[in-house]
Amino acid sequence: MELPDGVVDALTDIVGFDGVRLAPGELAVYGRDATPLFEGRPDVVVLPRTTEQVAAVLRLATEHRVPVVPRGAGSNLCAATVPLAGGIVLALTRMTRILEISNEELLARVQPGVTTARLADAAGARDLLYAPDPGSRTTSTVGGNIATCAGGLRGLKYGVTRNYVLGLEAVLPTGEVIRTGGRLWKDVAGYDLTRLLTGSEGTLAVITEATVALLPKPAETGTGVAYFETLSDACRAVTAILSAGIVPATLEFLDQNCISAVEDFARLGLRQDAGALLLFGDDGPIEVVAGNLVRLRKICTEAGALEVTLAEDVARSDALLAARRCSLPALSRLAPLTILEDVTVPRPKLAAMVDQINEIAARYALRFATFGHAGDGNLHPTCVLDPDDGAAVDRAHKAFAEIFAAAIRLDGTITGEHGVGAAKLPFLADRLGTDQLRLLGRIKSAFDPAGILNPGKVGS
Amino acid sequence: MELPDGVVDALTDIVGFDGVRLAPGELAVYGRDATPLFEGRPDVVVLPRTTEQVAAVLRLATEHRVPVVPRGAGSNLCAATVPLAGGIVLALTRMTRILEISNEELLARVQPGVTTARLADAAGARDLLYAPDPGSRTTSTVGGNIATCAGGLRGLKYGVTRNYVLGLEAVLPTGEVIRTGGRLWKDVAGYDLTRLLTGSEGTLAVITEATVALLPKPAETGTGVAYFETLSDACRAVTAILSAGIVPATLEFLDQNCISAVEDFARLGLRQDAGALLLFGDDGPIEVVAGNLVRLRKICTEAGALEVTLAEDVARSDALLAARRCSLPALSRLAPLTILEDVTVPRPKLAAMVDQINEIAARYALRFATFGHAGDGNLHPTCVLDPDDGAAVDRAHKAFAEIFAAAIRLDGTITGEHGVGAAKLPFLADRLGTDQLRLLGRIKSAFDPAGILNPGKVGS
Repeated sequence: MELPDGVVDALTDIVGFDGVRLAPGELAVYGRDATPLFEGRPDVVVLPRTTEQVAAVLRLATEHRVPVVPRGAGSNLCAATVPLAGGIVLALTRMTRILEISNEELLARVQPGVTTARLADAAGARDLLYAPDPGSRTTSTVGGNIATCAGGLRGLKYGVTRNYVLGLEAVLPTGEVIRTGGRLWKDVAGYDLTRLLTGSEGTLAVITEATVALLPKPAETGTGVAYFETLSDACRAVTAILSAGIVPATLEFLDQNCISAVEDFARLGLRQDAGALLLFGDDGPIEVVAGNLVRLRKICTEAGALEVTLAEDVARSDALLAARRCSLPALSRLAPLTILEDVTVPRPKLAAMVDQINEIAARYALRFATFGHAGDGNLHPTCVLDPDDGAAVDRAHKAFAEIFAAAIRLDGTITGEHGVGAAKLPFLADRLGTDQLRLLGRIKSAFDPAGILNPGKVGS
Repeated sequence: MELPDGVVDALTDIVGFDGVRLAPGELAVYGRDATPLFEGRPDVVVLPRTTEQVAAVLRLATEHRVPVVPRGAGSNLCAATVPLAGGIVLALTRMTRILEISNEELLARVQPGVTTARLADAAGARDLLYAPDPGSRTTSTVGGNIATCAGGLRGLKYGVTRNYVLGLEAVLPTGEVIRTGGRLWKDVAGYDLTRLLTGSEGTLAVITEATVALLPKPAETGTGVAYFETLSDACRAVTAILSAGIVPATLEFLDQNCISAVEDFARLGLRQDAGALLLFGDDGPIEVVAGNLVRLRKICTEAGALEVTLAEDVARSDALLAARRCSLPALSRLAPLTILEDVTVPRPKLAAMVDQINEIAARYALRFATFGHAGDGNLHPTCVLDPDDGAAVDRAHKAFAEIFAAAIRLDGTITGEHGVGAAKLPFLADRLGTDQLRLLGRIKSAFDPAGILNPGKVGS
């Protein structure tokens, strides 16, 4: 689009010269996020420092019907922050203050541009735990995590970002500043806008401050690894663990393709003859962690594990977790293009889902590997290919469409933790049905009558 | 109102003769819930057995613009189910099937009319825990708990109803059946309607089925009691407990007035010279519970407790918990009318809030006692009075209005777990501001364009 006359000047009045970016190179950078194959181009990038500036930008945008795409670090994997219709990219990355951390109240209050790792480290220094732990934690922002309801490696025991958001300050597209929730564990005054905004992917309002719950830091953590002949065996172990009354902090899997890629990449000494690897771990009081790790080893062994090892110390534990954390970089080096997807199925159907992924991959002659959060039934089927091979890219799109349909058939969902964005929007009706999709559109209009906020995403 | 011609016949066609109630006595019963001083009168009560029947009733009601008030057991304390505008009371109390309990998937699927205690017992028989634990659990329904986002005695460690709702089947006022969420721990496909409906108090849709998360049942529970000279001392102990990294399952308080009433009522041997009583407890692995109880005793002693006792066995533990559970019945016998309210403040401000309650009570010459969930900062100031003393009733209304204003001034809220209903609606703007209140109204219209669902409540 072309910006209406005077908009850039007005934006400059609001945020100052140093808060406006118009150089072609910078516009190109903010035209993409971490999602391959999606690209837009903003007309201007705006970097506010205060809630008042955000409100003024939004009022201006609504008045002139200019699209606004709010954005944190742009590390999302679903094209949630790609400015499909141009307009303004509103980057919250200058609002980076940790306003408060309270041991007494077990909470933190932060601006949206604080990175997840920085909040977690600041909490950790006070013997507190910020539980959400997305893979992107070193780069992603708390605001972005809330906008996408980010998950991560601790979802089963600790839940996802949604479970830790106590209150939000947010600006409506029409410029009103609202405060939802607050510092309270229990508050049912009005509809739950705190949770509605969490996961709304920048389509309803712009988050300008968040109050999040913290936990006492667990005294001890421990990790182990089990190899299985097949992924079905590993899934049987997962079911046995949960049925035995243990809800571990970590329960991650790698399939055979993923084990090979990680071992080629990182030389961790992983067993290449295994069909699946299960990483398990727990945290809490020392005596509980020690006891649970022994029980987890026993259950895995009884479920037919080829081999089970408990990490003897923190260094060894970190090495085991590295196998999971480097899955994506390991796969990324196999080909120039990596498409990392994100489906969830009920836990007992995890092996069936991976079987279907592999069948679909074979049928489309594509190279796939799958890893993910076994405890949550949350899988990341990952396709590696050459982006210049147009036919392969087409086949990959068709393969993923079949994978999403298969997940829905298994009572699952098309995205467990990454979000819908532009990438999954075409599949959302299959998951929710057209009646619910129309309802989402009406909710969107209740917040954003002019439709300026992140057009072409959820609610559009 | 008067029902349009043919509506009763059409309702009878939908749910059968035995599903329609028109007798004056029955209409009177369904004109009230557990909230004193609020009364309405439905024109007809409808008791559906299936989702299809609910959908047909709602389509009919929207077509004829007839108000519909969905209702479970009617045990709420905020007039959320009082049919202020007449019309149809839609009682879900015949939809009482537990459809599924899965140890493997740690979930249950139930119809909305199942009582909370029945679900908890059925889960318990399978060594599973349904964590939400509202005081009304033996009579209240799961559907009603979800509609009000019910809290209870385990909020601090386990969270509230919201944290356990995985998926809902719900019928929109216009008759469409939607399914939100599902059987999954991680699902971010679309706006979080599961959480938006949770706590929406029957104003957005009618819940016809719920999938809820269960936990492995803790191996052990333990309880203790500490007496303090003042409530401020007790609050200091609460802060010390949480700052020490313990998040106990139970952390309840009674103020001096409440201790006296309970002791007069139940003769439990409570100390009458104490200014406050703190009940604490934990659950989990045996070694953890035993260790935590000893630490809790030590912290309370160091915070200046007059006396601390740990329950030696389950029977003694139940006796201690009885002091908390019988607070309301004990207060109810002091006068014919008991008004039980529900505010939350940040935990460190609990004692200041109780001081203000007592100051306000004295100024209005009213008899108050306060108990509640110290760990959540959630207080239940309770006024006992004679309903025939009109001047006292007027003073009580004024006193509660001041209490709500005081809670808001302390960064708190006007309802922590009971809901808004008709009782708190006049105070909601003070808590949320008019911009947010207008937004709630637009969200309500997105679900219910004709405004038939529970008029005169949140969103109206």
